[in-house]
Amino acid sequence: MTDTYLLVNEDDLDRYTAAILRGAGMTAQGAAVAARVLVTSDARGIESHGVARLPQYVALIDAGVLDPAAAPTVERESASTALVDGHNGMGQVAAMEAMRLAIAKAHAHDVGVVAVRNSNHFGIAGYYAMLALEHDLIGLALTNSSPLVAPTGGKRAMVGTNPIAAAVPTGDDRPFVLDMATSTVPVGRLEVHARTGQPLRPGWAIDRAGHETLDAATGRAGALLPLGGTGETGGYKGYGLGVLVDLLTGVLAGGLYGPLIGGLWDATAPSDLGHFFLALNPTAFNPLDAVQERARDLLRRLEAGERAEGTVEILVAGEKERRAHAEARAHGVRLHRSVAVALEGLGQRYGIAGLFTNQVTI
Amino acid sequence: MTDTYLLVNEDDLDRYTAAILRGAGMTAQGAAVAARVLVTSDARGIESHGVARLPQYVALIDAGVLDPAAAPTVERESASTALVDGHNGMGQVAAMEAMRLAIAKAHAHDVGVVAVRNSNHFGIAGYYAMLALEHDLIGLALTNSSPLVAPTGGKRAMVGTNPIAAAVPTGDDRPFVLDMATSTVPVGRLEVHARTGQPLRPGWAIDRAGHETLDAATGRAGALLPLGGTGETGGYKGYGLGVLVDLLTGVLAGGLYGPLIGGLWDATAPSDLGHFFLALNPTAFNPLDAVQERARDLLRRLEAGERAEGTVEILVAGEKERRAHAEARAHGVRLHRSVAVALEGLGQRYGIAGLFTNQVTI
Repeated sequence: MTDTYLLVNEDDLDRYTAAILRGAGMTAQGAAVAARVLVTSDARGIESHGVARLPQYVALIDAGVLDPAAAPTVERESASTALVDGHNGMGQVAAMEAMRLAIAKAHAHDVGVVAVRNSNHFGIAGYYAMLALEHDLIGLALTNSSPLVAPTGGKRAMVGTNPIAAAVPTGDDRPFVLDMATSTVPVGRLEVHARTGQPLRPGWAIDRAGHETLDAATGRAGALLPLGGTGETGGYKGYGLGVLVDLLTGVLAGGLYGPLIGGLWDATAPSDLGHFFLALNPTAFNPLDAVQERARDLLRRLEAGERAEGTVEILVAGEKERRAHAEARAHGVRLHRSVAVALEGLGQRYGIAGLFTNQVTI
Repeated sequence: MTDTYLLVNEDDLDRYTAAILRGAGMTAQGAAVAARVLVTSDARGIESHGVARLPQYVALIDAGVLDPAAAPTVERESASTALVDGHNGMGQVAAMEAMRLAIAKAHAHDVGVVAVRNSNHFGIAGYYAMLALEHDLIGLALTNSSPLVAPTGGKRAMVGTNPIAAAVPTGDDRPFVLDMATSTVPVGRLEVHARTGQPLRPGWAIDRAGHETLDAATGRAGALLPLGGTGETGGYKGYGLGVLVDLLTGVLAGGLYGPLIGGLWDATAPSDLGHFFLALNPTAFNPLDAVQERARDLLRRLEAGERAEGTVEILVAGEKERRAHAEARAHGVRLHRSVAVALEGLGQRYGIAGLFTNQVTI
């Protein structure tokens, strides 16, 4: 496999992805939602959570452990809260429904909190947090996930990489968008280093005895470290954040949590993941203009801060991904050739006309 | 100064601290609140945020930059939200008022979010998050603080150590209580290492040029690193969390933020700090018993996980502090002799009868 990329028009990729998901059994509406989330991930430069995962979603559907046609239902509801059951459908569909509900509640009552159970992998958490931005709301999105991270002092993976995403509107096209796993790095990073032979960095992973390791294959066989690394460098904080996410998702919503969740892309049992969404109306506290002006001022001050020797620029959360998306809109979404080949295979399976003729290779 | 500790009865220390604060100009009610927060910090083993700070609070009051008698007011309010103005009083008083309001709103409407502006240092964030526990609610408490942390790629302190505290009820006496600064370590840790000559650990601090340093004095003159350390070890995540806290506190509430906040214990201008409190009712999502049972199950599974070589036990967030508090209740709160001496000085100033006769020295 050569390490080359194709550039694909974002809308074309969206339609192609949606067509594959319809072929796999999703409704037209559900497929459109899931495709949008996946392609946005690629467009924002987060390849690990984009269309590269389509074969794995399809494998779960083929194995009968994920119901592609499931429609989420609202199980309990109050003015500011709701519990959504994903009925073991695609996580993107349940998450979109839940975040829309949280947004509606925040519009009506200043704050909306919606928990989801019985769901699956939902792609990038940042997508849902960012939905709040169009409504001038602050958004928060959390999910638990397959255990890959060892608790501080432990040697087995017991906690997911449990991401935290938050989006704050700034009144311009550069909102604050934090979307971070609570592990130091994603497991995919260890795989890349194992492939290329590069050593790991401190704080990334432990071996099977629980000692920090800089060897990628050894780390891959061990477990990820939480954000902060070992206990001495603050890893108990990343571990605490990961557990907090589990408590606010699986534990609160009534799904699985921690070590009870199956392995990543395990096709033997439903994931039963939990999500948590919050939307908050800034105007409940202060005029929107004033909040946004202060937000911009803070972010611009940080960017204009004195740089460390050797640093080209100081970035704020979401800026790198915003630039990647602007680039993708202008020149196409970057797809690794291996991903394109896998997508074409799925396209052929479902009889979808080729996407990848006349694409630019970079 | 010898490195010895006194053991002081918790209630006695509470009364003595409250008397000092009344002497400094606080109301009886406000002094009781602030004393409770400070002494709880010491009792939970967090010396850095306890009564050791009394001389600094008094110095701010003496300098006229903190109004000890200020009463917080509710500026805006909806069913689930409120904005509180601390009127430049003690942070503990505004924070207690705000968290109580959030709890009342969560009781009535399942979720309460209260932001505070024009406040000061409020002690440990965990105290306020834990207030939710008595009401079987989930609690969250955030505050911004004096800039001590460099943004990733920067070389100057521009963001506070901006803590995140969260408490989740478990139905037993071992709730989940996360209370963490978004820097790897507090500035006090650098001071301790500078005094003892121990090297720093990776990920703690940078020098004035922005390079990571293991020399405590050099780091003290530079800046703290965010949780995760440098960019390569995930520091942009801790930096992102710190900025998120600033956005949800000073920016949302209408106080100062980031580099606009004065230096730690700066006695030349009001702090104008912002706080953020959230209380959430688990029963809006699932029966309390079921949520608490899952929470306990997750925490007990983590504690029972396979330990890394050389690890005595795996802890969950809040457990270390819970044990410290049980120990303090049984045998007294540990006070460093230098802190006791400083407190006695304040007691004499305000004509308060001695606390420290017949105390056990350890």
